[in-house]
Amino acid sequence: MSKLPTHVTLVDVGPRDGLQNEKQAVSTEDKAQLVALLQAAGLKEIEVTSFVSPKWVPQMADNAAVMAAIARQPGVRYSVLTPNLKGFESALATRPDEIVVFAAASEAFSQKNINCSIAESIERFVPVVEAAHAAGIKVRGALSCAVGCPYEGDVSADQVERVVQLMKGIGVDHLGVADTIGVGTPRKVQAAMERALKHYPLVEVSGHFHDTYGQALANIYACLELGVHHFDTSVAGLGGCPYAKGATGNVASEDVVFMFNGLGIDTGIDLDRLVDAGAFISGVLGRPPVSRVARALLAKRQG
Amino acid sequence: MSKLPTHVTLVDVGPRDGLQNEKQAVSTEDKAQLVALLQAAGLKEIEVTSFVSPKWVPQMADNAAVMAAIARQPGVRYSVLTPNLKGFESALATRPDEIVVFAAASEAFSQKNINCSIAESIERFVPVVEAAHAAGIKVRGALSCAVGCPYEGDVSADQVERVVQLMKGIGVDHLGVADTIGVGTPRKVQAAMERALKHYPLVEVSGHFHDTYGQALANIYACLELGVHHFDTSVAGLGGCPYAKGATGNVASEDVVFMFNGLGIDTGIDLDRLVDAGAFISGVLGRPPVSRVARALLAKRQG
Repeated sequence: MSKLPTHVTLVDVGPRDGLQNEKQAVSTEDKAQLVALLQAAGLKEIEVTSFVSPKWVPQMADNAAVMAAIARQPGVRYSVLTPNLKGFESALATRPDEIVVFAAASEAFSQKNINCSIAESIERFVPVVEAAHAAGIKVRGALSCAVGCPYEGDVSADQVERVVQLMKGIGVDHLGVADTIGVGTPRKVQAAMERALKHYPLVEVSGHFHDTYGQALANIYACLELGVHHFDTSVAGLGGCPYAKGATGNVASEDVVFMFNGLGIDTGIDLDRLVDAGAFISGVLGRPPVSRVARALLAKRQG
Repeated sequence: MSKLPTHVTLVDVGPRDGLQNEKQAVSTEDKAQLVALLQAAGLKEIEVTSFVSPKWVPQMADNAAVMAAIARQPGVRYSVLTPNLKGFESALATRPDEIVVFAAASEAFSQKNINCSIAESIERFVPVVEAAHAAGIKVRGALSCAVGCPYEGDVSADQVERVVQLMKGIGVDHLGVADTIGVGTPRKVQAAMERALKHYPLVEVSGHFHDTYGQALANIYACLELGVHHFDTSVAGLGGCPYAKGATGNVASEDVVFMFNGLGIDTGIDLDRLVDAGAFISGVLGRPPVSRVARALLAKRQG
């Protein structure tokens, strides 16, 4: 059996990727409180907000206010999504530790989602990456639809590798392999991940899985077997409600930490406090956490 | 990377292990209809009912009626749970293909659940196994709490192996390793499974996982890596509702089939018809299926 990593790093993307996909408006104060609870639970990387047009994503309209409201802790890295140079310039003023740029592995998704080809979307990020590096800011690249696409169906590892190389070509520092619609299964995910690992070192590759079809933990385990030790997760499974049509929730941080605890892999995260953070934001949203671990542990607490 | 099995066999335990843990009474007709829909979906092994005292499990009081009502198909195996010789004798008249006996890997669970020691519980099955074999009926042994116990916490692989040997000693033909409370994670499950495989051949070992903490698919994937190709699953995740306190649902058959399809492993099961079966029984119970795959696919059907 392959040797698994002894520790992993989780990026909680709940405040950004999670809340962005929640319809109900959340106040700036509650967003800052969520970040505070996540860092209290031991998270060292948090994706805080997005500098996208409020016309497209009203939930992120208070991006600068959220960045001003969070109580930063030394040793914690705060990242923000920047879809273009204008967004980057607004973000820069809020002093993020990292920025996130993105591209799809599927042409159809790129066209439908951001109205341009994959190559064009990468071109647009050239000045963003240059500006970020000039400011000493690390650039993470999120590669969406790395296993499947809602329009094209299966996405091949060749398509993934092509976009990985484009990202590498423009100087993206870190490559996140994202199964945006949650259709991945372990061997397909490993195949995509292996293409990323041909061009990026293990320490600069991460996995981002959605639990739409319940496959996320199996996929994360399959990534561990390749040595991957960096994952995006979303507290309380923020980012999609199982009762809503087309639910596309991120894997819940609580479920992932439970698995790592069982595997004896250090995350630096206190599961009980993480459950507290998830219970807080779920309370704000007025529904139970979309995390089986959170539900089971909260039920236990109630005796 | 280890080579995975090319095909797997699923035992749908929804009609028995699933419904047994659902509070709402289900009619004999609906139970027979569920079995009909499962075999229409391609299931070749179905755990139909339990010959336990109706005093303890009212939901299974119509066991003989259900066995009489199912429309048996050639090539499908119908199993029933028999907790003792009296139960076996009642079961025998209904012509099951297999019977299921059980023991816990945890002394505390054995005492609290069936009020006797593990060794005593095994002793009681001696005449049942003998009678089954005399009637040409195969005996499956379910080893519960194989990873964790609600009273003792962690259960060691040594404890598992001890009970595996006791099962083997009384002639149990097939050994099912069951994570009854869903606390297992991949490496712990592999450790338990390896002890079963020391005493039983691959073809006579199966895994039974609960998804209480969302770990079931990762655990099944970990078992595949050991070559295990026989799993219990429960259509619609019957056997525990995520909204109820102490939910302990079986892994949903739909989620498991989705993973196997993605891995290119043949199950002989039509996922769409399996979703139909789950939608049927969930409708009877008046709630959505506890399966992420079923929910996602049903949402898609609605457009």
